[in-house]
Amino acid sequence: MNSNFNQAVENRRSIYAIGKESPISDQEIQNIVEHAVKYVPASFNSQSARVAILLKEQHDRLWDITKESLRKLVPVESFAATEEKLNAFKNGYGTLLFFEDQAVVEGLQENFALYKDNFPVWSLQSSGMLQFTIWTALEEAGLGASLQHYNPLIDDQVKAEWGIPDKWKLWAQMPFGKVLAPAGEKEFSPLEARVKVFG
Amino acid sequence: MNSNFNQAVENRRSIYAIGKESPISDQEIQNIVEHAVKYVPASFNSQSARVAILLKEQHDRLWDITKESLRKLVPVESFAATEEKLNAFKNGYGTLLFFEDQAVVEGLQENFALYKDNFPVWSLQSSGMLQFTIWTALEEAGLGASLQHYNPLIDDQVKAEWGIPDKWKLWAQMPFGKVLAPAGEKEFSPLEARVKVFG
Repeated sequence: MNSNFNQAVENRRSIYAIGKESPISDQEIQNIVEHAVKYVPASFNSQSARVAILLKEQHDRLWDITKESLRKLVPVESFAATEEKLNAFKNGYGTLLFFEDQAVVEGLQENFALYKDNFPVWSLQSSGMLQFTIWTALEEAGLGASLQHYNPLIDDQVKAEWGIPDKWKLWAQMPFGKVLAPAGEKEFSPLEARVKVFG
Repeated sequence: MNSNFNQAVENRRSIYAIGKESPISDQEIQNIVEHAVKYVPASFNSQSARVAILLKEQHDRLWDITKESLRKLVPVESFAATEEKLNAFKNGYGTLLFFEDQAVVEGLQENFALYKDNFPVWSLQSSGMLQFTIWTALEEAGLGASLQHYNPLIDDQVKAEWGIPDKWKLWAQMPFGKVLAPAGEKEFSPLEARVKVFG
């Protein structure tokens, strides 16, 4: 049954062993991000997604910030493991920061009060759609990526460092780079318990 | 730059004019859903997504339930417009119900207390990934679909009607069918304000 689309979905994996090169140009990386930001849907066509693309030394800076933030929290005796993990992300070529603009979400809440509680939920679902689309497109272009969540720990410093508007809420970080080692085996739960068919 | 994957992303639209036929078999519809449920990621590989596929008369039943639920809420004088909208969904061939199993989410919260507040957020993002993947795959297979949100209004009746486990939280409904009319024009915000590049 596999179309190219389904095959791309299947090929996307979390790649943790990434290197400081890219098989595609910076412009092509930007094109992938912009294409997804343009075409992935959001409720009421609100287009609330925002992305920052950090490359090379800017990417390094993100992971230095994350490391110093965690150093204050993690017990000294277990920091070596934390540092090793963060260094693996820093070894990559770039990182994407996924935000949702809360100014847009709050605007929807004001204009459509009946759905007030839904807009933050739909915003999260839309952000997931975007993260997945870019992740899969990067994999297809030969880049390995994974999805990390050091928000909200790093939020204030990220905003200060890159001049991010205060209303942009950070939801995920996606380090990426040349694939140095493939993903391992993945375990799957039985589908019979997860998908039910009626009719 | 368009790969087949990017083209599929671009082709996916909200299709509201749908008919009671399908260009692919019920088994192929199930294959599309199961493939996505299998390969779309969830945090900690928790595989919390659940989907119910309602076809033909079961699909009709869902939209009858939704109509009767809304009839109790919507003022009589504006119910005609509501009914017309719901009938357009009922005109389709089937509906997918997207759930997240809260038993899985709560299990993660207990086992990884440090990330307690994150798991519901990640569960929503993962559900969005799955909705988008199936939506795009259906479009590629020649079916039109859209994403609707009559939860939590219909939750109890859906659970009762199809014997859905109590811990499955309904997040979205996706009516689909033969495409009777294409989507209209879509407006896009300028990408310069949405994607920032550093480095």
